[in-house]
Amino acid sequence: MPKEGITPRAQDYSQWYLDIVRGADMADYAEVVRGCIVFKPTGYAIWEAMQRGLDDRIKATGHVNAYFPLLIPKSFLMREADHVEGFAPEVAEVTRAGGEELAEPYVIRPTSETIIGYFYAKWIRSWRDLPLLINQWANVMRWELRTRPFLRTTEFLWQEGHTVHATHDEAERETLLVLNEIYADFVEKEMALPVIKGLKTAKETFAGALRSYALEAMMQDGRALQTATSHNLGQNFAKAFDITFSDQHNSIQHAWTTSWGISTRLIGALIMAHSDDEGLIIPPRLAPIQVVVVPIYKNDAEHSAVLAAVERISAEWRGRLRFKIDDRDHLTPGFKYNEWELKGIPIRVEVGPKDIEKGSVAVARRDMPGKAGKSFIQQAGLLAHLERLLAEIQQGLYDRALRFREEHTYEATNYDELKIGVERGFVRCYWAGTTEDEQRIQDETKATIRVIPLEQPDQAGACVLTGEMTTQQVIFARAY
Amino acid sequence: MPKEGITPRAQDYSQWYLDIVRGADMADYAEVVRGCIVFKPTGYAIWEAMQRGLDDRIKATGHVNAYFPLLIPKSFLMREADHVEGFAPEVAEVTRAGGEELAEPYVIRPTSETIIGYFYAKWIRSWRDLPLLINQWANVMRWELRTRPFLRTTEFLWQEGHTVHATHDEAERETLLVLNEIYADFVEKEMALPVIKGLKTAKETFAGALRSYALEAMMQDGRALQTATSHNLGQNFAKAFDITFSDQHNSIQHAWTTSWGISTRLIGALIMAHSDDEGLIIPPRLAPIQVVVVPIYKNDAEHSAVLAAVERISAEWRGRLRFKIDDRDHLTPGFKYNEWELKGIPIRVEVGPKDIEKGSVAVARRDMPGKAGKSFIQQAGLLAHLERLLAEIQQGLYDRALRFREEHTYEATNYDELKIGVERGFVRCYWAGTTEDEQRIQDETKATIRVIPLEQPDQAGACVLTGEMTTQQVIFARAY
Repeated sequence: MPKEGITPRAQDYSQWYLDIVRGADMADYAEVVRGCIVFKPTGYAIWEAMQRGLDDRIKATGHVNAYFPLLIPKSFLMREADHVEGFAPEVAEVTRAGGEELAEPYVIRPTSETIIGYFYAKWIRSWRDLPLLINQWANVMRWELRTRPFLRTTEFLWQEGHTVHATHDEAERETLLVLNEIYADFVEKEMALPVIKGLKTAKETFAGALRSYALEAMMQDGRALQTATSHNLGQNFAKAFDITFSDQHNSIQHAWTTSWGISTRLIGALIMAHSDDEGLIIPPRLAPIQVVVVPIYKNDAEHSAVLAAVERISAEWRGRLRFKIDDRDHLTPGFKYNEWELKGIPIRVEVGPKDIEKGSVAVARRDMPGKAGKSFIQQAGLLAHLERLLAEIQQGLYDRALRFREEHTYEATNYDELKIGVERGFVRCYWAGTTEDEQRIQDETKATIRVIPLEQPDQAGACVLTGEMTTQQVIFARAY
Repeated sequence: MPKEGITPRAQDYSQWYLDIVRGADMADYAEVVRGCIVFKPTGYAIWEAMQRGLDDRIKATGHVNAYFPLLIPKSFLMREADHVEGFAPEVAEVTRAGGEELAEPYVIRPTSETIIGYFYAKWIRSWRDLPLLINQWANVMRWELRTRPFLRTTEFLWQEGHTVHATHDEAERETLLVLNEIYADFVEKEMALPVIKGLKTAKETFAGALRSYALEAMMQDGRALQTATSHNLGQNFAKAFDITFSDQHNSIQHAWTTSWGISTRLIGALIMAHSDDEGLIIPPRLAPIQVVVVPIYKNDAEHSAVLAAVERISAEWRGRLRFKIDDRDHLTPGFKYNEWELKGIPIRVEVGPKDIEKGSVAVARRDMPGKAGKSFIQQAGLLAHLERLLAEIQQGLYDRALRFREEHTYEATNYDELKIGVERGFVRCYWAGTTEDEQRIQDETKATIRVIPLEQPDQAGACVLTGEMTTQQVIFARAY
């Protein structure tokens, strides 16, 4: 029986997603501000955990944080031809400030390559100033027509890295280092979400980039979600903003830049990859609360005894795991179980008078609803058991998502097979088509080439559309 | 002899401040975006350290973080009469978005009482929903005419807490808890900056608040800087946004709200309170780098030997203190000393061939420039010595700032004494004047009542202006 208020996934995936967001109290629609949401405490705490995991990796790979202005002179967008085409239609413009009309409007940053490029041009003089490895945590705004909580909102939160290098190869190495050591490592280890790393086709490349790399993950409806992008911008922005340096031979060169970002979209990916018809499921490493303890009692005497036992049992947990004792007195245990299931807390520990007698507790796994995930555990050694269980749940979620992706990835050797495959999941196939072919397939199937995977086959094969022999395989999928 | 590029404090305090900001590479003027700065990595790292210290205290006192929209419908500002008067003249307005004129403009949040009030009204139903204790880390924008790096910029970064309570007294307790346990504790312990806690007069109360409390600190030119504010908003915003709840007797009541904030202005306070003519001085607890090690060598053989010794000596430091080994090969030790002095790193450790022979190192304290702060320390036990020294420097900076404030605080019994006192520092005096009197004193002396201190004398005295007997003392000062 599905949980009250949650539409089953199988019935309406899209409505299920919105029900989880509401049921877990993660966000509210900001109906008075077009396309925005409020990140409520439960949703924002997940973003804070993501920020910590990402920021640690960003710093461990030699980057430092800084902060650049929210507003960008509108003319800056125009300096890079592809960039303006990509972003100008969806910017919000500040035209009045301090009670006066502005001579030149500002746009609220949709991304910061232009404003940061302007400053980098001022700061960089010599090869000794390179590489410059800066990241920014910020809000950005893109006036999208169709929005959806977390997945696509006019304002969203993200980090954007912007680096400058002396050579193309160094910029390329940075682009891939970020993709592998920051993003893929984070998404796979912390979010428990397997990713396919790859290059975007020309059609899907970032506006102004030489090459865009991305991570693609499969959601439970078989669609792809791009969880991170990392762009080698070549010399495009360096030329538009005159970012030059004097090299070791005192010759002035244009620099090579990169940019890379990951956003609050990840919260949407987290929901869609792991959750079930009971509510949200948060991987233990990202869970703001990993273990919730629900005391069970019928009268005041039991209440005191049980709370004392809970305090005693959990005394050694502090600093070892993140937990909460739900001692709200006006709610039934059943109501609390339901609420913490909806909110995706990995483990629930129940302690009642009988448990005290037996020296045990009941432990329920969120990733295995019902009896399958419930067991009675001795209080002695409980902490070690919970720590093992959290690791097991983390790995189990990853394994389950990987198995799901493998079961929903199809090899296609012709267009008919491709069409059937993208109805169900990812299609892996040889590809030698043009951008026009890619567009035609999108128009006909709603699927796009998500990536040209970094891992490619040894052997050639026939292009799924043209039959031409090629060694290049791609992933087609419908995407969020 | 003053450091090259740093105007001595005694000569021009205002230029000295700007020279420190530039010399320590903390910020750049964003001349293309009115009144904005770029928070460069050195400056931003201090903000990150401040955020950690504040966020820990915010959470330890039961608050949770969330995120509300950047844009606010312009009409929202109008709902609270004092609030619109205070903020409407200095907002930036978004009038176009997605290529179209908007029917109603948005303003970029100058502060979020209105937009958050709107959502709180939706979320709160019953007394069981209270208290609601939410904080937000965000950027805000106020179109100020005169700006100054960190101290006053059109865009700045801050946290803003917004809480809702069932009664006036609860709201008042929250306002004071934040002032004492979050703000004063942070500013005194982490920033090493003594503060005077107090109530603002009606004239200086936040636009829309019932009562505003603040922390005032003395800068090295004797002026006051308000480091934090905490407001009891009474029912003003609850009435403007219809934040009501059903109480335990099922009667509908307007709620009581508070708001409180601390901003990147603190970075300016940090500079002005502690730094000297050699550059920035960062209190050890906030220093992103607490100890910098500079290897000294004349040739390749010495280079290898010294670097090996530095690696050996610092091996046990990891996780115990934040340090950096400055092994840049193209710069002289003297250049490096100068750079790290400018950047305010609390301790410099020098290691050369002679130190290796003797089993010692040279340790230089940033808070005591020159020979007074330099000593030769045995390598054995060095870590413990450095940890003690960091604590000593932290306490020493606090003591120095407190002594400075005490030496520059004057008791005034008449207006002439007040006029002389505010030329040099704080004036503490009895006060029974009106808002008009306060304004007149400001017009004549440029000094304002900074706070009515929470600590008040036992005895009555004569008002500094009117001679009327009163038990109320206030602090007059010129302020940033």
